[in-house]
Parts: sequence; structure tokens; C-alpha cells
Amino acid sequence: MKALVYTGKGTVAIEDRPKPTITRPTDAIVKLKHTTICGTDLHIIKGDVPTAQPGRILGHEGVGIIEELGSSVDGFKVGDTALISCICACGACSYCRKGMSSHCVTGGWILGNTIDGTQAEYVRIPHAMSSLYKLPESANLQNAVLLSDALPTAMECGTLNGKVQPGNTVVIIGAGAVGMSVMTTALLYSPSLLVMVDVDPARLEMASKLGAHHTINSSEPGAVEKLMALTEGEGYDTVVEAVGIPRTFELCQEIIAPGGSIANVGVHGTKVDLHLNKLWDRNIDITTRLVDATTTPMLLKLFNANRLNVDTLITHKFPFNECEKAYEVFGAAAKHKALKVLLDM
Amino acid sequence: MKALVYTGKGTVAIEDRPKPTITRPTDAIVKLKHTTICGTDLHIIKGDVPTAQPGRILGHEGVGIIEELGSSVDGFKVGDTALISCICACGACSYCRKGMSSHCVTGGWILGNTIDGTQAEYVRIPHAMSSLYKLPESANLQNAVLLSDALPTAMECGTLNGKVQPGNTVVIIGAGAVGMSVMTTALLYSPSLLVMVDVDPARLEMASKLGAHHTINSSEPGAVEKLMALTEGEGYDTVVEAVGIPRTFELCQEIIAPGGSIANVGVHGTKVDLHLNKLWDRNIDITTRLVDATTTPMLLKLFNANRLNVDTLITHKFPFNECEKAYEVFGAAAKHKALKVLLDM
Repeated sequence: MKALVYTGKGTVAIEDRPKPTITRPTDAIVKLKHTTICGTDLHIIKGDVPTAQPGRILGHEGVGIIEELGSSVDGFKVGDTALISCICACGACSYCRKGMSSHCVTGGWILGNTIDGTQAEYVRIPHAMSSLYKLPESANLQNAVLLSDALPTAMECGTLNGKVQPGNTVVIIGAGAVGMSVMTTALLYSPSLLVMVDVDPARLEMASKLGAHHTINSSEPGAVEKLMALTEGEGYDTVVEAVGIPRTFELCQEIIAPGGSIANVGVHGTKVDLHLNKLWDRNIDITTRLVDATTTPMLLKLFNANRLNVDTLITHKFPFNECEKAYEVFGAAAKHKALKVLLDM
Repeated sequence: MKALVYTGKGTVAIEDRPKPTITRPTDAIVKLKHTTICGTDLHIIKGDVPTAQPGRILGHEGVGIIEELGSSVDGFKVGDTALISCICACGACSYCRKGMSSHCVTGGWILGNTIDGTQAEYVRIPHAMSSLYKLPESANLQNAVLLSDALPTAMECGTLNGKVQPGNTVVIIGAGAVGMSVMTTALLYSPSLLVMVDVDPARLEMASKLGAHHTINSSEPGAVEKLMALTEGEGYDTVVEAVGIPRTFELCQEIIAPGGSIANVGVHGTKVDLHLNKLWDRNIDITTRLVDATTTPMLLKLFNANRLNVDTLITHKFPFNECEKAYEVFGAAAKHKALKVLLDM
């Protein structure tokens, strides 16, 4: 089969690989229909993720048809259309039992990381019963790919960790695919004010179209003052960091309200400064999280009911044999006005 | 009247001051019986708290007799014995209404900070109805002083923010008065493991007597490895920072379990490093808080029922005219094996 392989620092290539086979009775083999590229794939290629070594087939998002099932997998049959969760969950370890499958001792984020992933014609999914979701015949399978990772990550690491509630003031720093997805899920909770911050005017314009109440370009002078003025000087109940660099984490600390929550979603490559000398008495919390995919069923219900505003999140589509070109476009996403980039098998 | 006054960087002195008077109908005047010194008082003297200026009567903890009441204060009468909360709460502003009286717009921590405090023969208490608590005749009034600040701070900023639950593993960094108080309140929730960390063997011995399951001297080699071994390498569900310096905040980040909570209680004078490059996917939270004193009624119920283990927290007692000496002892607390230092009027 054809597969997209991480071949060494900075490079990927389409290679011929053997089709995966069932290795445990809890496995499933899925024939991919659609997959996509995640910011984390770019981090792997940069060499930021030491668990993912050259030779690995990348990808942890996808939708496909069940090709083969291990003997103990109930609830699915060959030929079912399935959503692949980015998180494989055994359902039995202490982490899974407390709803923290991101740290499942035999699962978690392993696809396209410590085992071969979804950017291929076929993929082996361990712990299939709790890592796959059946999709209805009527589902828009291209959009459904957003439910593998982008939307649950946005919901759990951004909206839920940020404690968004009706009436809250919310600001999202970074209007890329993740920040936009956080906005989509945050709006489900009816904040009184949702502000999107970025340095790119095109992305801010897109954020306005997707529902941001205000946008602020943080590269312009007086950005902090403008942000504070929108809350009458109080700061934001929820601040979502969706970039992953020290400068944006700094901004979060400048605009947080007393009693507010800073939800970190960005993948950071370096340490940051935390101004505890200013924040020790501010009654704030700062959260980090790898998605547990515990909200996937909730998001699927909204998606199947056509109540999830995701139509504009996929900006580019490529056939799988143009995979390397898709990586180039996604790697310079702002330049290409790209959010999520779909790959069709 | 006699009062202990912050006279300029590094110095305090007993001075003669006029007795305070009722200035608003919601005020009360309390004649002090006992007061105490807080770590924050030492921060004021060092010049770390710019809102507290020289000339200020210090102190935000105390027990006394109601001497005079404003015309609108219900529920108290002259002659009642009252506990003074370190937090004055109007009960009406948006912060008070959401239980965050620490940031009350006309109250909060003002005693001994922006208005004259409790280290005096008399004190004026604003918003008396929600800032004073009646004490029963039978109460141990010396121990009751711990309910002004130390115990609610420990409970709210340490135990509750740290999400201590039955079965949790808990580590407290810093076995001073605050750390010991956190231990007292954390034990109310029956953790499976509570470890106290300090650099002073005498304090660690005291912690063992007060109920710590294990103690670790962090100045000895291999301290982190020993701490991790106690949790079989997983790290701690709750890590309480009760010192307030970069080195101890660093230690917190090294021993936190996936999904754990770092509760910052220490008052920090500088920024710290936050290793988001290691923690972004660890599903942790970091909290800061100035006490809201919302748990004072809960703690009073335990105290009045003799179910709060506080007998050993007050290690030194001085008459008020030896106030300056008391500051010396508390300022070198480890040397004097001091936790809380009581001042008797």
C-alpha cells in the first residue's frame, strides 16, 4: 500500500509499505477514505517529538471503512464507516477509568507517533471498540475527519479547560485551525464576548465570518489596551493559548481577569515565564491537556444533527498522491490562507 | 491606644495612635484580645507589598470583643466575642456574589494593608456583618486566631485548589506555618499519602508529629527520586507550593502526576520558569489564590466541635508590648522553631 512516511528531520515521502494485519484480537484494520494533517505532524517533522522516529507512517486523524476485525471486537462489522479517534483507549487502565485516555498505558496518542498512522491506504487501530466510532450513512465524511482530533482537542483543552460558560468573556490567541476550532466549540456555550487575536488580517477576517464578536491584530500597537477596553478593564474570564510560543503565553497573563482561566492548547517547544509575582493573588488557573477524546460522543451527536458549524474549517483538499504538496501548503498555512487540509484516498 | 506600625523598609515600632471610630454604619470597632503575625506582614516590611505604605498599623488576624457597632450592623451586639476575618467582604459586589471576596471592590485584604490593622488595642472592621464571626464562650480564643487567615488560606489555596480527595497522593513543599496548616486541612480529606518536604530537620520532625505520612529533606541528594519512589514513579495528584521561590516551584513541576494539580500558596517576589515544553500534554492545572474566606464557617464548625488539629501550630506567645521581639522571632522562624507567634493584648 501507499503511505506517507516521516523520513528524517524536515522530510516526508510517499513509500510502498505492506498492508497492516490484525496483531491482537482487539484490533481493527480500517481502509482510509479521508485523512488530514495536524500541527503535531509538523512538530514531528521538525524533530520536536522524540517518540516519533524516522520510518514512521504519520497521521492520527481519519475516516474509513472497516476492512477486518479482531475476534473480540463487538459493536462493529466489516464494511461499517468509522471515525478514527486520535486517542486509542484500552478502557481498563487507571487513566482510562478516570476519563484520561490521553495517558492510557497501552494507548493514548500512539497513531502516527509510536505506531504507524492514518496517512496511508490502511491503518491498524488497537483497542478498536473504544477508539472507533460508527458514522451514519448520511454523514459528510470529509467534515467528519475534524472529529478525530481538532474538535475534541478544541473542546477539551480549550473550551472545557477554559471553563467557558454562558455570559463569560472569552479571548482566543491564535486563529489557526486549532484556535478556530476552539471558537466553534466555545460558541456552543454562549459567551457574552468572544474575541479572536492573531497577527494575520486574513485569518481575523475568517474568524469574524465564523462568529467572533471582535478581532484584534496583536501585531498592531496598543493591542493589550484594546483587549482590556473590550472588558472595561477587567480582563477575560477565559484566555485560550492556541499558538505555543513564549510571547503569546505572556499575552495571556496580561489580559486574564481575577478568577479567570488560562487554557493552554499550544504545543510548546521551550519553557515560558510565569509571573507568579503578579499572579499569586489573582485566583487564576492555568491548564494543560492532551485530548482525552471523552467529548467525541457529544460532538458526534451535534455533528450528526447538523448543529456543529464546521463547513469552513477545511480550506484545502488534495488527492493522497499529492500528500507531499499538502504538507508544503499546511506548513505555510497563513501564506496559503489554510486551516485544515484534507487528503482524499 | 498602642499599635504596631510599619515605619519604613525593614522596621516596625509600637506607637501611640488615636482609638478608631465608626466611620460608616456598616463598621464595627473591636477591642483585640489576641492577634498574630503573618508571613505577608514580613513581605510588607521588606517592601514587597506596594499598597501597604509606612505609617500603616499592621495585622489582619485577630480575636476580640465588640466595642461599638455601626447603626446597620445586625446579628452582633456590643460585648460579643468575635473572630476577625482577614478578608472584608461587602457581600454585594460582583466578586463577593460569586464567592471571590478576596477581590471585593470595597474590601478584600485591606486590614493592615490599605487601612489600619489588628496589631493594636482596637481596630475598625468595615463590612462587619460579613467580616466578623461570633465565637462561643467556650472557644479557645488563642487558637481561634488561626481561623482569621492561616487555616482558610491553607484550606482554599492549598487543599481545595489542589483538589485533595480521599485516596489522593499529596505533597506539601514547605513546612512553615502555612504548609503545616495545609497539612491540617488536607488530612480532613483522607489522602492515601501525604508527604511533607522542607530543608529543616526540626520542621520535618514536627510535621511527622502533626500527621505527615512521610517527610523528605529536599536539601539532601536524591530528594526528587525519593519523592517519585513513594508514588511508584507516577508523581503526586496534589502538589502544594508553600514557600514562594523559583526553586520550590521548579520542584513542583518535577513531581506532578499526569492529571495532577499544582496549588500555589507561596507569595512570590519574582517570576518563575514554567516548563510548558514538558507539561503541555500532562493534563495538569496550576492555581493561584488570595483567600476568599468562604470556608471560614466550615472551619469554625470543625473548630467548635474540637475536630480541628491546631493545638501545636502556635509555638510562641508574647505580650503585645514585646511585639517587636515577636517580629524578630517570626522573621527567623526556622532558627527559633517557630510556626505561628501569638500576641496577647
